[in-house]
Amino acid sequence: MATDTNVALLGYGTVGAAVDRLLAASAADIERATGHRLRLVKALVRDPARHPDAPAGLLTTEFADIAGDPSIAVVAEAMGGLDPAGPYVLDLLARGKHVVTANKQLVARRAPELFAASAASGVQLRFEASVCAAIPVIKVLREALVVTNVHRVLGIVNGTTNFVLTEMEGGSTYAEALADAQARGYAEADPTDDVSGADAAAKMAILATVAFNTRVALADVDHTGITEIDPIDVAAARELEMVVRLVGAARLVDGAYDVRVEPAFVDAQHPLAKVDGAFNAVMLQGDAIREITLAGPGAGGTETASAIVADIAGVLGSTGPQSDPVWRDLPRLPPGESRSPFYFRLFVEDRPGTLAHVAEILARHAISVARLVQHQDGSGATLHVVTHEAAAGALAAALAELGALAEVSRWSRPIPVVSDRGVAELGWA
Amino acid sequence: MATDTNVALLGYGTVGAAVDRLLAASAADIERATGHRLRLVKALVRDPARHPDAPAGLLTTEFADIAGDPSIAVVAEAMGGLDPAGPYVLDLLARGKHVVTANKQLVARRAPELFAASAASGVQLRFEASVCAAIPVIKVLREALVVTNVHRVLGIVNGTTNFVLTEMEGGSTYAEALADAQARGYAEADPTDDVSGADAAAKMAILATVAFNTRVALADVDHTGITEIDPIDVAAARELEMVVRLVGAARLVDGAYDVRVEPAFVDAQHPLAKVDGAFNAVMLQGDAIREITLAGPGAGGTETASAIVADIAGVLGSTGPQSDPVWRDLPRLPPGESRSPFYFRLFVEDRPGTLAHVAEILARHAISVARLVQHQDGSGATLHVVTHEAAAGALAAALAELGALAEVSRWSRPIPVVSDRGVAELGWA
Repeated sequence: MATDTNVALLGYGTVGAAVDRLLAASAADIERATGHRLRLVKALVRDPARHPDAPAGLLTTEFADIAGDPSIAVVAEAMGGLDPAGPYVLDLLARGKHVVTANKQLVARRAPELFAASAASGVQLRFEASVCAAIPVIKVLREALVVTNVHRVLGIVNGTTNFVLTEMEGGSTYAEALADAQARGYAEADPTDDVSGADAAAKMAILATVAFNTRVALADVDHTGITEIDPIDVAAARELEMVVRLVGAARLVDGAYDVRVEPAFVDAQHPLAKVDGAFNAVMLQGDAIREITLAGPGAGGTETASAIVADIAGVLGSTGPQSDPVWRDLPRLPPGESRSPFYFRLFVEDRPGTLAHVAEILARHAISVARLVQHQDGSGATLHVVTHEAAAGALAAALAELGALAEVSRWSRPIPVVSDRGVAELGWA
Repeated sequence: MATDTNVALLGYGTVGAAVDRLLAASAADIERATGHRLRLVKALVRDPARHPDAPAGLLTTEFADIAGDPSIAVVAEAMGGLDPAGPYVLDLLARGKHVVTANKQLVARRAPELFAASAASGVQLRFEASVCAAIPVIKVLREALVVTNVHRVLGIVNGTTNFVLTEMEGGSTYAEALADAQARGYAEADPTDDVSGADAAAKMAILATVAFNTRVALADVDHTGITEIDPIDVAAARELEMVVRLVGAARLVDGAYDVRVEPAFVDAQHPLAKVDGAFNAVMLQGDAIREITLAGPGAGGTETASAIVADIAGVLGSTGPQSDPVWRDLPRLPPGESRSPFYFRLFVEDRPGTLAHVAEILARHAISVARLVQHQDGSGATLHVVTHEAAAGALAAALAELGALAEVSRWSRPIPVVSDRGVAELGWA
């Protein structure tokens, strides 16, 4: 029943190669969701010798091999830049091919032309990957909030500057924080586009265009970067229980739009203040929804490729099988095998050898202790224990055995611990 | 070009009436997005006298008026309960009508039957509104993460318990916090379903079913509520720099699923620890995306209705006009008219009358001061000022005038303040 559908790529760099990998790895999921068996048939590159790992026959240096191939239904643009990407995309749309693009500069600068070209040909132009990588903010604005009059979009849409500002909160100078961001690969050797706010401005122009259903030109987005942030600003923000963040703000005010990117003091209680490091977050405020915040990694080759492939699937007319005609019959994990770090307490008599006895029983059940604190009280002591990841069943068995000890009077139900850090790195005041 | 399409409602309570309002208020948006002019033609209720505000002719007490009307293409179920909602939905699906439902107990308990019925008739069953109201987590799982192997879903999916636990962190007992939740309308008079974890378990069964593309029965979701949370637990969590939250966790482990709801210690740095009060958040972790978190109000009549209407639009075959054939030509707000609270600093000579002079000039430009702190230093003083909402242009004019004063040596660029609280409520350490 599935249709064979040919797809092509413009560009085979980090993102393009990741699209190729994801299309191959997820062929069955895509076929289930769309009814299409996707075949990547061509990828346009400047110099095939720079892509020795590409499959034989995939690469071409001729745009005409893609534009002129009527079997190619969808083209994903992952080459970046305005020229030749812009003319290529316009040509493909005019020829009736759907286009999916990750190119924020192109969409932010030429949306009116691109949108008109896709409407004229009756094909789709999708660009989820152009804003915040895999965070599906365009889809949510266009499809989930169809009846919500979104009147404000607030975003932390540049991971580099958010990382730098988070580091400055910890006491680093701007120069130190930027050097750290470069060392970790969050900032380019030339970070101008990020630290000037220009990258964020392009994303906010696209978000405002979609949220308000209008045309916001990049030139109409005022932007100020983070290069002038003074340590006095960071200190003053802290005194106010706020943090400094580079905030993109798009508002509808009495039928006019106001879109800007600038450093702002953000209340520490506000969701945007809680976005640390290189993550992005976008908050959408509207009449019917109050506010919805989407957060995640705003960059990355695989993340961007994931958004491109989801857009390709969307173009093919499917919104997914809403009620799973094809599904997997998976077993339930036996409850005792559920693994997690755990916290529990033991109330013990305070006599020599108790701790050794407890530790020995835990070890016998393969429960490894990450943290242990003993609080004395009049009649005995409370042991607060945090384990490394352990099976719930093994811990229950260990606690039953511990409970039978003469020196243990009672114990608490184990509580799982949720942390991205190792439990050994948690604080213990 | 638009098609007239008839829609019906089962139930006309808070959610049903909000669907009616949103359909009317957003008719133009929906027509633009879907090409359909939606008409709500019938709403099934038990007692029409209880809905005096319903439009004339809308209400019926006969299910057959909806089931037997071939002009009705989509039915939104907002009546709740298992019976008769379950038989009604199955009947409607069998008759080839698309169904959109907000009924989490129904979907969590009877998904296999419901999904099979919709597949057999070739119609859609959508249920975004059944989990976390307007937070579009079902859409994101099904459509945006089509190629991401989602292997873990972590959620705070019950606002009542999250509010209670947040209050307990502030020192309230469980009973006090629950009474407060009831007073604010976050908890029912009988809060059993919430505090026992049963409500969260139903949502997690649905999320796991969609995320893992399998069938997770409600009976296979272990759940523990918050009624046994001990103040010692809250204190121990704080010592560990963690917070207690009722966490729903769904995991794929070696091809088996593990879905549970229970109180957990959550690292204060973890995104789920930052969800305060009655909000919900769901974190999706997968191979290609690392993690995406969606947060927002997880309940509410209008929010739930917004999800229902978006699902109705989705059913009608549209994923929205991806490139806006119809759009609004909005003007840009003149830059000086952009309004915000602002922070700025003035460096002044420390002489009598300076503060009065500064205040007088700000007042003349309609700049109202919310907070002002003066820090002395050797040669003078720094005034840190936070304004109430003000126009950027007026503030710039005021600062230019202030800068011309003999006693003002320099001033900082104004920085906008982002806060959900009034600026007067911000801390100042």
